[in-house]
Amino acid sequence: MNYSSKIIENAVKALSGFPGIGTRSALRMVVFLLKRPKEEVNQLAESLMLLKTTLKSCRVCHNISDEEVCNICKSPNRNHRQLCVVEDMQDVMAIENTAQFNGLYHVLGGVIAPMDGVGPDSLNINSLVTRIENGHFEEVIIALNPNVEGDTTTFYIARKLKTASVQISTISKGISIGSELEFADEITLGKSISLRVPYQV
Amino acid sequence: MNYSSKIIENAVKALSGFPGIGTRSALRMVVFLLKRPKEEVNQLAESLMLLKTTLKSCRVCHNISDEEVCNICKSPNRNHRQLCVVEDMQDVMAIENTAQFNGLYHVLGGVIAPMDGVGPDSLNINSLVTRIENGHFEEVIIALNPNVEGDTTTFYIARKLKTASVQISTISKGISIGSELEFADEITLGKSISLRVPYQV
Repeated sequence: MNYSSKIIENAVKALSGFPGIGTRSALRMVVFLLKRPKEEVNQLAESLMLLKTTLKSCRVCHNISDEEVCNICKSPNRNHRQLCVVEDMQDVMAIENTAQFNGLYHVLGGVIAPMDGVGPDSLNINSLVTRIENGHFEEVIIALNPNVEGDTTTFYIARKLKTASVQISTISKGISIGSELEFADEITLGKSISLRVPYQV
Repeated sequence: MNYSSKIIENAVKALSGFPGIGTRSALRMVVFLLKRPKEEVNQLAESLMLLKTTLKSCRVCHNISDEEVCNICKSPNRNHRQLCVVEDMQDVMAIENTAQFNGLYHVLGGVIAPMDGVGPDSLNINSLVTRIENGHFEEVIIALNPNVEGDTTTFYIARKLKTASVQISTISKGISIGSELEFADEITLGKSISLRVPYQV
């Protein structure tokens, strides 16, 4: 690609580093920025730099946070007897958006994946065990993705917590609400039959 | 959406201002940046700010440029007797990439579109006329998009240049190379028949 300016070329190269954004999309973004007021572009640039300079990992739950301890961990309005174990900050956001959970979180920072060189020690599992041993939790909900790595990690954590006097749950798996049985994949449909629940009238 | 941090929320909002990028894509970009080294993020931010602080419009052709006069206008290796009139800088890049044109450019900065309040005076048409009257151009190629606005603007410019002793051309329109007739739209196929060219053996 011939760019009429080195500055444009650099901006396109930097933007096309994002996943799913190619040279053409990056160029469209640059042209868009060229037409915006200077203040708006500076604000964007500053908000990106702040990501790396100001953000911390919460000392308690390892979720991303503006402060030492995050708002959820500090809040007196949350149920401090329920703990939800998730893989990363996006999962926290997804669960928060459901408004179905009012307890605390513990972010593992990944799942056990020996093929990618990720063992239990590179995750926040030890701090989870310590947190449960020293806390007053009644229930730990393990909410990991339903795949091999997620299931392995769930099994590993559940075994680690066996001796702790705490109820361990996992999120339910089955047919998505609003979907149609005939279009569901076989494994999910099979699971939803074997994991069937009694129907209350 | 519940964000665990105001800084993340601001970055997501700023990024989702781009055309074609929604909240989810913006969040994915933020998560990607969080995992990159600080230097890389700063470099991205700086290259975006440079877009607004350093870039100029070439005094001669109005293309975007690092300097007062752009590299194409300054180059002694270009044909200074041919001028190609385009809508914006992306068109310059697209034509440069074909390597089929070695003349100079003139960037209008848009096309005549009365519905959007864009008249001839808000475009770089007067400077085009002056440039041709004072220059030594032999040919002016008007390369605008083949739609109502593009055709109107082509007609307007051609009439303005009627008295200048210069050959006026437009880019050819017709069936795309490599496409199939049966899938071409009716208007293009019709045009490609009415605009047929003699075949040389």
